[in-house]
Amino acid sequence: MTHDDLLPAVPDIADAALAARLQAVLDNKTKPLGALGRLEALALRLGTILGTESPALEAPQMLVCAADHGLAARGVSAYPSDVTWQMVENFLAGGAAVSVLARQHGLALTVADCGVRRDFQPRPGLVQRRIAAGTADASAGPAMSAAQCAQAIANGREIVRALPGNALLLGEMGIGNSSAAALLLARLADIDIDRCTGAGTGLDADGLVRKRAVLREVLALHADATAPLDALAALGGFEIATLVGAVLQAAEERRVIVLDGFIASAAVLVAQALRPHVAQRCVAAHVSAEPGHALLLERLQLEPLLNLGLRLGEGSGGALAWPLLESACRIVREMASFESAGVSRKDA
Amino acid sequence: MTHDDLLPAVPDIADAALAARLQAVLDNKTKPLGALGRLEALALRLGTILGTESPALEAPQMLVCAADHGLAARGVSAYPSDVTWQMVENFLAGGAAVSVLARQHGLALTVADCGVRRDFQPRPGLVQRRIAAGTADASAGPAMSAAQCAQAIANGREIVRALPGNALLLGEMGIGNSSAAALLLARLADIDIDRCTGAGTGLDADGLVRKRAVLREVLALHADATAPLDALAALGGFEIATLVGAVLQAAEERRVIVLDGFIASAAVLVAQALRPHVAQRCVAAHVSAEPGHALLLERLQLEPLLNLGLRLGEGSGGALAWPLLESACRIVREMASFESAGVSRKDA
Repeated sequence: MTHDDLLPAVPDIADAALAARLQAVLDNKTKPLGALGRLEALALRLGTILGTESPALEAPQMLVCAADHGLAARGVSAYPSDVTWQMVENFLAGGAAVSVLARQHGLALTVADCGVRRDFQPRPGLVQRRIAAGTADASAGPAMSAAQCAQAIANGREIVRALPGNALLLGEMGIGNSSAAALLLARLADIDIDRCTGAGTGLDADGLVRKRAVLREVLALHADATAPLDALAALGGFEIATLVGAVLQAAEERRVIVLDGFIASAAVLVAQALRPHVAQRCVAAHVSAEPGHALLLERLQLEPLLNLGLRLGEGSGGALAWPLLESACRIVREMASFESAGVSRKDA
Repeated sequence: MTHDDLLPAVPDIADAALAARLQAVLDNKTKPLGALGRLEALALRLGTILGTESPALEAPQMLVCAADHGLAARGVSAYPSDVTWQMVENFLAGGAAVSVLARQHGLALTVADCGVRRDFQPRPGLVQRRIAAGTADASAGPAMSAAQCAQAIANGREIVRALPGNALLLGEMGIGNSSAAALLLARLADIDIDRCTGAGTGLDADGLVRKRAVLREVLALHADATAPLDALAALGGFEIATLVGAVLQAAEERRVIVLDGFIASAAVLVAQALRPHVAQRCVAAHVSAEPGHALLLERLQLEPLLNLGLRLGEGSGGALAWPLLESACRIVREMASFESAGVSRKDA
């Protein structure tokens, strides 16, 4: 079992002196003060995470963690569980949205089987870290044991440790996992489950009513699972627990962590509950159409870059926002200063 | 003088059959219906503009039009007019925000001197189409004559005609030009000038009060300039008039037109007033911090892709949004269908 004290240390990286130097660099670029808006705040954040006045993103890694959910049997998703393994095949074949977008932006794509109910043939781009063939039904007992949860976290840490680069983009696949994310948000942020629960991949109104009733029942069953790791084991999924480990490892290594949608963000919520400086290393790519996502990002005090009504997951939103992170770094590194370009200042 | 009937025809390109085919392509991709949100609407729009179920953006052109404004002498900007030519030099030297972002995304950058108060040495990337050394002071008379306005429009058309590709990104530079944009919006959309007027590059509160008073005076002086070309000549700028020509030419050729901030969008407002199907070819990259911009986009019925508090112009917002247009096309062309990937449909 993972005791909290076996998880990595994630120290405070706030650095007022570095922030002041970065701000001075930005303010001296040939543009009115603050005219690049939130791109400047993003540049400041990336410089802080990477600990430099000259931030550069290297070998960005898109990690898509996949697993099945016992709770799916309760009809909480519009799609059958088989779609999980089918989409893993689609990721690897290059036909999914995240595959297309990762290719567009030169993001290395790693797909991790964390607990899909299907055997995969080994192949490049697939890492096999299956805990079990899907979690147990959380409406009957804990989704996973404490030992399984610890193993998944250890797997996530090990996967990231083996990846190069200084930026990790989070992705996920798992039919039923917007339910797990809603449960974790409700429990860890103490928000009513109805507000945390949305249509996921496309439930109709009746389906949403059923989903909310099931999730309320699950929360009541696990009323004692209040500590982050207990909540993760009782309510989470193998892909979410693996992502928690990935996030903690990336945070320890001071990689830039790019959130995607509701489920990937739920993994960050758990990691942040375990290590309160995790969010300093994070960039929220977008806010999704799933209503719990905005609440979750607010809780993490992260402002999303995009708001395009996405509700796909997979890491697709992270990939779409990625060029903005690149732009923020390039602005710092490549723009001329007033002096170097011979441009007059305000009121000159 | 340009008579309206000498401008190009810009026909209605709405095509219900093509839209239905594009929608069917999107709906058959391996994702829940509509899960890519506004990226799907963008894909539909790009397919409609380019007239194909397989949209591909080719040789995108960033056109930055620059000119000076006589009205700047009235203190409507936080920066001196010299910054216009200094920034043109900066664009060409590669140190401005738009230079950095165009380089990042492989956008060809053309800078047009449409009426800057300074001679430039000819060089690659610079087209010299100067009407005069800045407009006249619009608070004393029309900013330009009808003949100058017609020439600027013709110049814009000719510049675009000579550029390759099927996408045009609009950019501009001109100290004082947020005043011209505010005046055009107030006149053509019949909105009170105070609502159209913001701090531009960074006026303080007193400066904003002065700017609003000057602009109200200018509008009153040119109360008769209500037709689009008359308003453009009386209130506009050489860079804006050149952009109007560029937009009309791009619209005639069915290029994708990417709006940037308030000033570039004001050129589209004029073009749309002249030819009411122009906006069908347009994509609004972002909504800026300049308050008139949201009003202007609403008038054009364009929903911006980004909202990052930008207020720089230059084409910087268009460049930042560009990868999203690329992504929308790639989703259509490269994602697998349910059949090709063997993925189960909803409720299967």
